[in-house]
Amino acid sequence: MEVTRRDLLKGSAAVVLAGAIPRGVAADDDPLPSWNDGPSKEAILDFVRATTDHGSPKFVPEPERIETFDQDGTLWVEHPMYSQVVYCFEQVPALVKAKPELANVAPFKTVVSGNREAVSKLPTSELIKVLAATLSGMSVDQFEDKVKKWLASARDPRWKRPYTELIYQPMVEVLSYMRAKRYKTYIVTGGGQDFVRVYSEKTYGIPPEQVVGTAGGTTFGYDKNGRPFLTKDPKLLLNDDKAGKPEGIHMMIGRRPFAAFGNSVGDREMLEYTKAGDGERLAMLVFHDDADREYAYGPAQGLPDTKVGTFTPALYTEAQSKGWTVISMKSDWKLIFA
Amino acid sequence: MEVTRRDLLKGSAAVVLAGAIPRGVAADDDPLPSWNDGPSKEAILDFVRATTDHGSPKFVPEPERIETFDQDGTLWVEHPMYSQVVYCFEQVPALVKAKPELANVAPFKTVVSGNREAVSKLPTSELIKVLAATLSGMSVDQFEDKVKKWLASARDPRWKRPYTELIYQPMVEVLSYMRAKRYKTYIVTGGGQDFVRVYSEKTYGIPPEQVVGTAGGTTFGYDKNGRPFLTKDPKLLLNDDKAGKPEGIHMMIGRRPFAAFGNSVGDREMLEYTKAGDGERLAMLVFHDDADREYAYGPAQGLPDTKVGTFTPALYTEAQSKGWTVISMKSDWKLIFA
Repeated sequence: MEVTRRDLLKGSAAVVLAGAIPRGVAADDDPLPSWNDGPSKEAILDFVRATTDHGSPKFVPEPERIETFDQDGTLWVEHPMYSQVVYCFEQVPALVKAKPELANVAPFKTVVSGNREAVSKLPTSELIKVLAATLSGMSVDQFEDKVKKWLASARDPRWKRPYTELIYQPMVEVLSYMRAKRYKTYIVTGGGQDFVRVYSEKTYGIPPEQVVGTAGGTTFGYDKNGRPFLTKDPKLLLNDDKAGKPEGIHMMIGRRPFAAFGNSVGDREMLEYTKAGDGERLAMLVFHDDADREYAYGPAQGLPDTKVGTFTPALYTEAQSKGWTVISMKSDWKLIFA
Repeated sequence: MEVTRRDLLKGSAAVVLAGAIPRGVAADDDPLPSWNDGPSKEAILDFVRATTDHGSPKFVPEPERIETFDQDGTLWVEHPMYSQVVYCFEQVPALVKAKPELANVAPFKTVVSGNREAVSKLPTSELIKVLAATLSGMSVDQFEDKVKKWLASARDPRWKRPYTELIYQPMVEVLSYMRAKRYKTYIVTGGGQDFVRVYSEKTYGIPPEQVVGTAGGTTFGYDKNGRPFLTKDPKLLLNDDKAGKPEGIHMMIGRRPFAAFGNSVGDREMLEYTKAGDGERLAMLVFHDDADREYAYGPAQGLPDTKVGTFTPALYTEAQSKGWTVISMKSDWKLIFA
């Protein structure tokens, strides 16, 4: 059954029953009011028409309507540093207090020193040690509590707003619109699965079970009262980046998406895999070309690779040759944040 | 919003819109017509009332309504051998034909010999070699095709029916009833995730993304035309049995279930984990005590451990002491198969 735009706008029983959250959909005929008219907006509307209109030769049955969205740089700000990495760094002082033997050990010593330049130069292998130490060795419930508390008080240094408010309003509209059209929206992120699951429902309307991310294992055990609980292990189960994204999609979802949104080389394989399916498929890349309202980084600016995911010239070329749509934040989006 | 029993029976717009499949629900007031009145049926009805009636102090909001079901022995017949193991054995001749060097190597030699007694005595370590060899080394699409073809022609030796018809009608009713009550129903099986996903939607109304099972990794690559595809690896990512069940639930769902159904020691930790949550939780065990209509195995029969998951005396004791409900197939179920 199809939820018509009219149902959606009426907030009718149909939509409420279907669990669709019409948040971000404006009270006129336009489901994407924060998008300027142009090829990007048209690509989204065309795709939805082609796959959800009953008369369409490329109609997709509801259960198969799966879409995947990268998070960092696609749904929210990733610059100058992933929020989760900020979280991990900010856990280090407490970690060192609990384990004083780490105080003089690299890379913890560097992080505690507060020397930003030294921290920004930490090689990936050292960074991983910080992530592993701050993301494991506690129960999954303790971790969730820590992240919730941190999110409530942490502020982005530029906008002085909680990280969960720095989500791109045009993309929030895409999520809502797609859900109203009975697409299941998934986050597929290189970020930590357990981290993103803490806020995904409240922030994006995406429930924990629809978050696929980089994941460590857990170990089942019992506390002293015999109550079972899960401990987070430092062991990596799923490295949900690059080729790991389609691999993670197969593991966690088991179906090929009909649409995928990304913004960097970390999303390349996910977009290739999505587009290689039969029928109508949509692949879109958010291009950060708006230095005033957000950031500009990538090949167009001739910027060197940054710590965060990059939009390389090769990716741009591949997008052109394969019919992926590149979203210009500067020209396609009327506003960035709500 | 609550789908009332009346809505359900009317097949009203509400149910259709909500995507609920009222299959298996009879056209009278009883949502579980294949269940005899008694403590098992009452436990299910009480649980649903407690968690979905709006006035209930233990009301659970819709997005949190997660339930998990073991498959083998809980939703369909597991005796005398798991269907998936039968599948793997039946792949061996073709495998040996493709790789003649395996013909004289254990355990493949034993399987090809057709000596049933020798095959049934294969130790687990040898069995795993057969599983790994027949469940990997092909693309995920090729695997899906093979399983589909096999399911279409394979027949259970006792009932001469396709395995996917040997599903327990009373449990099908539980699945349908729970979905009508807005519970998301998941399979959490020690069986292969990719295997079960091939038929889960058609057989149980459970989509692939709601199947958690033992899973190997995949590797992303490109074919000679540059088209991306995933190859199934022999590497084990998730051993979804015993403690691996709550670990797999955390990995794949990220929420603790409100109800869990199992039938063997492989489900113990899942039931413990489920029951340890706050509020109303339901834990149920299917007890195979019906030698006439299905099979009888487990402690009550004094049978030795079988190849398949067992219901040990210790499990029975734990169920009694922790308030888990034991379902007697013989006395609780009016019929076994549809």
